[in-house]
Amino acid sequence: MISRNQIKFVKSLQQKKYRILNKSFVVESTKNVLEILSSSYDISYIFATSSWINSNKISSTLEINEVTKNDLKRISGQKTASEVLAVVKMPEFQKIFDFSGVNIALDNIKDPGNFGTIIRICDWFGIKNIYCSKNSVDLYNPKVVQSTMGSISRVNVFYTDLTQMINSLDDSVMVYASVMNGHEIQDCKLSENSLIVFGNESHGISQEVLNLTNEKITIIKKGNAESLNVSVSVGIILNKFCN
Amino acid sequence: MISRNQIKFVKSLQQKKYRILNKSFVVESTKNVLEILSSSYDISYIFATSSWINSNKISSTLEINEVTKNDLKRISGQKTASEVLAVVKMPEFQKIFDFSGVNIALDNIKDPGNFGTIIRICDWFGIKNIYCSKNSVDLYNPKVVQSTMGSISRVNVFYTDLTQMINSLDDSVMVYASVMNGHEIQDCKLSENSLIVFGNESHGISQEVLNLTNEKITIIKKGNAESLNVSVSVGIILNKFCN
Repeated sequence: MISRNQIKFVKSLQQKKYRILNKSFVVESTKNVLEILSSSYDISYIFATSSWINSNKISSTLEINEVTKNDLKRISGQKTASEVLAVVKMPEFQKIFDFSGVNIALDNIKDPGNFGTIIRICDWFGIKNIYCSKNSVDLYNPKVVQSTMGSISRVNVFYTDLTQMINSLDDSVMVYASVMNGHEIQDCKLSENSLIVFGNESHGISQEVLNLTNEKITIIKKGNAESLNVSVSVGIILNKFCN
Repeated sequence: MISRNQIKFVKSLQQKKYRILNKSFVVESTKNVLEILSSSYDISYIFATSSWINSNKISSTLEINEVTKNDLKRISGQKTASEVLAVVKMPEFQKIFDFSGVNIALDNIKDPGNFGTIIRICDWFGIKNIYCSKNSVDLYNPKVVQSTMGSISRVNVFYTDLTQMINSLDDSVMVYASVMNGHEIQDCKLSENSLIVFGNESHGISQEVLNLTNEKITIIKKGNAESLNVSVSVGIILNKFCN
């Protein structure tokens, strides 16, 4: 069962202001919900069809609200509603600014699909922390959550003033900028502790942040495409430097 | 001006059956349209706002139909209509099965955004031909075209029976499968002439095709994500083997 108030509440979480107000966000699809269930995240509600409940034996003390497919259609933010939807409390990320190893910063990333995919890539390569400029897309945007494919519960995302943060780093951390005209990554060796900055999909890294980086790095181009998708660039660069 | 019939015609091209019937597809956004204009593709119509026409001096003999933003909204397949839309004739790809160098095959890729991004990646790394299984997403799906960011005019895409094609390859071409449990790409050296197969987003490569491959290859995983997005995998693997 789902009440009118619950429907209104879940639908409101499609909007950032209500997510902030309620410190809650929505997770959809079996993969994402199962990952959240196996994490330390605090879940307020799960709404699922009877067939989902029967085929996913959840060993959680949490009560699952059995609803119809039509109910899920009404509360889903996806084009095609899944058979399960969870309302999850936003975790309190502890601001640990630990820059040992390879770290990444995102300057004004706007596309939710790109951001979710980047979180998934970081989870693949074992990167725990992502530092985002404050104007980057919201972590709890439903499309971001969806594109993380469950990795959202294993990567910490901090929104911060990147210029202030980079200025405060100690000398042991080298800051790299992923750009179109830098040193080819094949020839680069990163410093042991490094922060790699990736920029906005259309405009790249802001000049302010770029001025603070120590070295520009670039993926070798052999053909004619003007650029690569930012999440693909993150994947290629992390594969090069995380191994 | 745009006539009622033109509106009906352009909108019909959102559907595959009408694209095939009319051997035409739609290209939207400045970047994509400018790339098509500078290619050898045959353009039937361009619809653009006066401000777009004024700021993009096109040296083409083609007449540009000046329309309002509202007209573009009516014919656009995008969530947010661009200021320009072109109707383009499907080219006749010459079936040249040339497998020198690195080549890729896609087995049942379904997501249009992934496919478009893969075409863009191939264009970045100078790969000219992509071989797709016949059940893969349509090249002229508007979301595919959009995600190629203009690279669609520089990469040839062939839909073919992959098992037949692989069976017909001569021994100089080695066939690799991108999977979860293969040899780590860091330790691999591809054969001079190679075909790398990537599989469906959820189910990977079909068993039939997998059985015909010579070697399984895998991107090293350090963390916990279950998988990588297929376009990110293509990017990482091509970066490794195209340099």
